Amino acid sequence: MVNHSYKLYYFNMRGRAEPARFLFHLAGVPYEDVRIEREDWPNHKEEMPWGQVPALEVDGKKLAQSAAIYQYLAKQFGYNGKNDWETAQVQELLGSIDDIFSAMRPVFMAQDEAEKKKVMEKIVADTVIPYLTRLQKRFEANGTNYFVGNSLTVADLVFMVTFASFKDRFAPGVIEKFPKLDAFVAKVSQEPKIKEWIEKRPKTDM
Amino acid sequence: MVNHSYKLYYFNMRGRAEPARFLFHLAGVPYEDVRIEREDWPNHKEEMPWGQVPALEVDGKKLAQSAAIYQYLAKQFGYNGKNDWETAQVQELLGSIDDIFSAMRPVFMAQDEAEKKKVMEKIVADTVIPYLTRLQKRFEANGTNYFVGNSLTVADLVFMVTFASFKDRFAPGVIEKFPKLDAFVAKVSQEPKIKEWIEKRPKTDM
Repeated sequence: MVNHSYKLYYFNMRGRAEPARFLFHLAGVPYEDVRIEREDWPNHKEEMPWGQVPALEVDGKKLAQSAAIYQYLAKQFGYNGKNDWETAQVQELLGSIDDIFSAMRPVFMAQDEAEKKKVMEKIVADTVIPYLTRLQKRFEANGTNYFVGNSLTVADLVFMVTFASFKDRFAPGVIEKFPKLDAFVAKVSQEPKIKEWIEKRPKTDM
Repeated sequence: MVNHSYKLYYFNMRGRAEPARFLFHLAGVPYEDVRIEREDWPNHKEEMPWGQVPALEVDGKKLAQSAAIYQYLAKQFGYNGKNDWETAQVQELLGSIDDIFSAMRPVFMAQDEAEKKKVMEKIVADTVIPYLTRLQKRFEANGTNYFVGNSLTVADLVFMVTFASFKDRFAPGVIEKFPKLDAFVAKVSQEPKIKEWIEKRPKTDM
């Protein structure tokens, strides 16, 4: 493998950079984990391809959009499915969870905590629960402890990170209603290299 | 190439199925173009992986999420970039336009035509114009008549379809403010196989 120079730009939080950080750790590939403080963001926004992070820099060239970053790294490191159909399923699953993030936008725009809670409850009932119901069926139908094929892909990493953030912060008690998904998070989090990163990573609020 | 059996499920409109239809036409690969009428949709919703269309069926297995469908077909037919970095750029561009569709959601939820117009004007000013400004710069920086590399990819097809729908329906006069993007649509639409499909395809409102 050629040695590339990688930089990952994001805020000082897990969020949408964390699946990429897991990939680097799993592959044992060094990278610069650039964590921009909120107050410095205006100084860096225009350096990013779409004025957004996460952004990945590979040998000086930048790539944005979290799904593109995840699948590019996953392809390099062997976590993007074993054939084109599996790769397509990974992309389908990343798209499906992005739809949920889009549906949650009104929560982040809500004015105060009370309104935020009310908006989130409606989105959980109307969108998140039906989605997780389908997703759990899909997971069961695959018949392994992974979402695609019989080995870890970046789709699993994204679900693990997302479900953990739901449990800890965004929708406490919801993932717990889906025992197969909850067991999936618990089991994947115990894989040695994954556990290692969880223990080693910088401690941040989210 | 192995002969696969393809079915593409969508409504009887161009919309999010059209880039896939262009790919089949460009590749000369036969497929069943299943167009579900709105009133029949409740009978088919549960047959789809996430209760959504477009969905692609390949040899009896279904795939959802438009970007996953586009890139899967583009990979099979040679329109997904010439290497991993180009493929990542295609995915980045598909993600970027999806962000714009997400930002436009309030338009489709608006109650009446007057509100719809007002909401759309704000989204155009706050989101669409800054996006197209960046996108036009990106297009110029690539230095060919395509968004990625020096040949047609599915990203070009998605932009062509999207810009045409902006011009015709969703945001008249906006693309016209970006002469390089406007010229791109005009030029790509004249490529012989693309022109052929535009002339041949079923005539629908959108």
